[in-house]
Amino acid sequence: MNKNRKLPPGVVNFVFGLGPRVGQTLITHPNVNVISFTGSTMTGYHIKKATAGLSVKLSLEMGGKNAAIIFDDVVLSKLLPVLIRSCFSNSGQICLCTSRLYVQRGIYDEFLAKFIPEVKKLKVGDPFNETTNMGPVVSKEHKNKIEKYFEIAKQDGNEIIAAGEMDANIKATNKGYYIMPTVILNVDDKSKLMTEEIFGPVVCIVPFDTEDEAIERANSTQYGLCGCIWTENLGRAHRVAAQMECGTVWTNCWALRDLRMPFGGVKDSGIGREGYPYSEEVFTEYKAVCMNLA
Amino acid sequence: MNKNRKLPPGVVNFVFGLGPRVGQTLITHPNVNVISFTGSTMTGYHIKKATAGLSVKLSLEMGGKNAAIIFDDVVLSKLLPVLIRSCFSNSGQICLCTSRLYVQRGIYDEFLAKFIPEVKKLKVGDPFNETTNMGPVVSKEHKNKIEKYFEIAKQDGNEIIAAGEMDANIKATNKGYYIMPTVILNVDDKSKLMTEEIFGPVVCIVPFDTEDEAIERANSTQYGLCGCIWTENLGRAHRVAAQMECGTVWTNCWALRDLRMPFGGVKDSGIGREGYPYSEEVFTEYKAVCMNLA
Amino acid sequence: MNKNRKLPPGVVNFVFGLGPRVGQTLITHPNVNVISFTGSTMTGYHIKKATAGLSVKLSLEMGGKNAAIIFDDVVLSKLLPVLIRSCFSNSGQICLCTSRLYVQRGIYDEFLAKFIPEVKKLKVGDPFNETTNMGPVVSKEHKNKIEKYFEIAKQDGNEIIAAGEMDANIKATNKGYYIMPTVILNVDDKSKLMTEEIFGPVVCIVPFDTEDEAIERANSTQYGLCGCIWTENLGRAHRVAAQMECGTVWTNCWALRDLRMPFGGVKDSGIGREGYPYSEEVFTEYKAVCMNLA
Amino acid sequence: MNKNRKLPPGVVNFVFGLGPRVGQTLITHPNVNVISFTGSTMTGYHIKKATAGLSVKLSLEMGGKNAAIIFDDVVLSKLLPVLIRSCFSNSGQICLCTSRLYVQRGIYDEFLAKFIPEVKKLKVGDPFNETTNMGPVVSKEHKNKIEKYFEIAKQDGNEIIAAGEMDANIKATNKGYYIMPTVILNVDDKSKLMTEEIFGPVVCIVPFDTEDEAIERANSTQYGLCGCIWTENLGRAHRVAAQMECGTVWTNCWALRDLRMPFGGVKDSGIGREGYPYSEEVFTEYKAVCMNLA
Repeated sequence: MNKNRKLPPGVVNFVFGLGPRVGQTLITHPNVNVISFTGSTMTGYHIKKATAGLSVKLSLEMGGKNAAIIFDDVVLSKLLPVLIRSCFSNSGQICLCTSRLYVQRGIYDEFLAKFIPEVKKLKVGDPFNETTNMGPVVSKEHKNKIEKYFEIAKQDGNEIIAAGEMDANIKATNKGYYIMPTVILNVDDKSKLMTEEIFGPVVCIVPFDTEDEAIERANSTQYGLCGCIWTENLGRAHRVAAQMECGTVWTNCWALRDLRMPFGGVKDSGIGREGYPYSEEVFTEYKAVCMNLA
Repeated sequence: MNKNRKLPPGVVNFVFGLGPRVGQTLITHPNVNVISFTGSTMTGYHIKKATAGLSVKLSLEMGGKNAAIIFDDVVLSKLLPVLIRSCFSNSGQICLCTSRLYVQRGIYDEFLAKFIPEVKKLKVGDPFNETTNMGPVVSKEHKNKIEKYFEIAKQDGNEIIAAGEMDANIKATNKGYYIMPTVILNVDDKSKLMTEEIFGPVVCIVPFDTEDEAIERANSTQYGLCGCIWTENLGRAHRVAAQMECGTVWTNCWALRDLRMPFGGVKDSGIGREGYPYSEEVFTEYKAVCMNLA
Repeated sequence: MNKNRKLPPGVVNFVFGLGPRVGQTLITHPNVNVISFTGSTMTGYHIKKATAGLSVKLSLEMGGKNAAIIFDDVVLSKLLPVLIRSCFSNSGQICLCTSRLYVQRGIYDEFLAKFIPEVKKLKVGDPFNETTNMGPVVSKEHKNKIEKYFEIAKQDGNEIIAAGEMDANIKATNKGYYIMPTVILNVDDKSKLMTEEIFGPVVCIVPFDTEDEAIERANSTQYGLCGCIWTENLGRAHRVAAQMECGTVWTNCWALRDLRMPFGGVKDSGIGREGYPYSEEVFTEYKAVCMNLA
Repeated sequence: MNKNRKLPPGVVNFVFGLGPRVGQTLITHPNVNVISFTGSTMTGYHIKKATAGLSVKLSLEMGGKNAAIIFDDVVLSKLLPVLIRSCFSNSGQICLCTSRLYVQRGIYDEFLAKFIPEVKKLKVGDPFNETTNMGPVVSKEHKNKIEKYFEIAKQDGNEIIAAGEMDANIKATNKGYYIMPTVILNVDDKSKLMTEEIFGPVVCIVPFDTEDEAIERANSTQYGLCGCIWTENLGRAHRVAAQMECGTVWTNCWALRDLRMPFGGVKDSGIGREGYPYSEEVFTEYKAVCMNLA
């Protein structure tokens, strides 16, 4: 073993380039027999199809459309800071971000009355400025893509609340691909807004009545990356966690991660898990060696 | 838990039918999210392609073209009975059967002089007859398929030795799809006989000189199910076992299987392993449930 | 492997006899190198001392003085049937039985008002009679031992409530070593009643105020076999479970056991765990075999 | 988690002092519930007895009297350098050092003819001198203890060969507790020389005839720390490894250690194993937490 714990030269290689040219060459190369991919569901399935005729093992970490279920026994003041972070961190451009909020009807009005003012307080601007809460999205193309969902919301007759406070300088210069933190209400579970990954600072909020209903509706997308449950009740926390169709469930928290936990998604969010020992299988070809000693 | 250890009704279902109709329907059904398949490499890859756009986990146990490497330090009398069984059991119609014999040159002539007479002693006939060593192959179509390889062998100029002793009754009635145990010599490693799965009582025997050469040639097919090593030498047994590209290596034995050993192939012989705990991963969606208790 | 899964003759042997003669001979025999013992703490420590100079591995499952902590958010009607079973099953002669009840002060009076009438309903009598809830204790000696604790309680000035309804026939004949289900109040945590294993149908009930206090008092004996928590609150259930010093914690239940759970106690309740894979270590001598293949 | 991977203050404490005062205080302290000890068998058993009445888990790594079995198929020139290192490293003051050599009779004379000249070449002297092969033993008391075994050997009529070449300066000044590398022949398996741990540069060499005999004689001490096998034969290597009563078997090597291997001894050499995951059990109190979610 190398005492400095350096990997031997050539073991790890960084190869830069665009998918069609570099990615495609790598994934179909005859010497490659394991591919561990993190990225969009579309690219993940492209890899799955491109390697379908090859003896290649895959581990895919793909997109999400993560729901949070908020029951009526919560203390709103306690959960709001974490919940807002789960919706708008990195302008919603984290695969783990929450984008669908199911709020139990008994506290729905109170929830909106407290949640939206908190969103309005978010300072949007230069991410290098220490007082900024939220920066721009990653590119012009991505900004355009997100804004198309606002068109859809308008056509669907949803209520759109663009909140947050834009930095004066940014506003004046109109530079950077900024999108204000956005809350959308009155959305149908089957709409594109509730089933497609927007990957921006956009959250849809809808009321629900019963535990069973909330579980069914939270599970009603093709994604299954992660989910959040907010409740103080022991039995409900565990029952709902067991039934949510996703790889990770956070209860009364978000994005806490111990590296020994399995990480990954179900349904169109992925195949396989990262994190030892769960990722051992994909990176190992077990060999049985049986010797007759007679 | 059920004290009688019976599975609840509906958990296990046997569905009979041909691949295009029943198999295809099952593997592409939206409610199926794990497929564990055992069968031919061709069908395995068909499943892999047919499910490439679906969120389905696969475990594939496919074909083999298994080599045995016989080093010059062996005691031939000790290994011959097991070796012959590994070649001709069930008329060679076991995925684990040996079909390529690499024999070290120093004992090559002696090996043939002892191996072929043993093959000649095999009694071929009705499998319900207790004195029979080898029965017919599974169908007329399969017999035809195997015999096509004999045509190839003739065209390639290989030496074909059809051995074994056919039962007199069978001979007289000419009923049943019988193929005599067949040994083929002077075969090129790149020929179809040495690279395609024949799945019949057919074994190709070739000489080799060095350990490294034997490993390289044994690894020169796209299959990687299992392999055999015959040697008394400690270092060689382990070195060769470590370098054979296959899921299972048997040393001085064949087809011994402890159910706790991982079972499966590499390359075009399969993806994934059977046998607990190795098969746990394919049948399990691990879910991380993280609760904030503050 | 034996297809009938029968152990070979001689592998398992039942040896009957008393401890001083048979037990002592077995535990100190030079051919015995693992002892897995289930029984009293006194006998467990005797074995530990008797084998202290020998190369013998031990797994000890010993006694308990198990607490239940009942928080003020519970629904009493839901928990009472299970709680009463946890106190009086097999006349309290199960190592897992609850013998100390810590009840949060806000519901203490209501708890007693509902618990004691339920205890009074228990029918004590012939255990072969289907309507019987509780039978006798195991022997005259054991009955005497339990009754000595009643003397202590009287001397300590505790309130003793002998409840349950004795079968008329038993009462008339005065046969059998019966003890009525007994509730003792106003007991000091340091008294013998609260720190020694009585192993009878006797439960001490005391009030508590805070979560931290309940944990500290529940942990204040030398035993650490199991404990129960009764609460509907998620955070509290997990926090208290993590801090109870015992091998098993049951929350809103008692004596549920999946065989894959580790089973055993801490402190004077035991060393080691039963249940695969937790018991593997005690029954296995791992051997590292390292071969140089150069 | 601390990014600098520093343990919090107070977690690890080094306490220096002699056993009767410091050791005894530590092992019997009521707050200590796990003891992992590495040292002599005598001290290990003292700890086992001193804690027999306490709820303390033990992991003991104690002494050894390690045998090497050298079969007649070996290439002596290949093994001699490693074998000599296994006998005389650190003047034999490593618990893993080989102190009993069982040499198959067919090569016994040849072995001695080659082994003893190699021992004679060892340069004994100042360990800070780069050309030195072997330094002194640890103390005057330990030197005296080792020399008592030479007295026993003389009384038993064994042949004692003190080999090695003493540094001229050391010889002249007569300073330091030096013992020459010593080979003793004609020793009985039951003698103190063959059954007690000398912990010095002393090795006993005896011939044997059969594999079974060698195993039985190698196993004939109360120690079981480690052992060596020297053979080129596959079946024999594995058969003997399986039957040697010790925690680690090295074949054609010595003291190679991967930290994932279990490390520890059987019989009077220890209880428990070090090395993850084997040491997890001793340092963990598994707690089963079972929650009823109905």
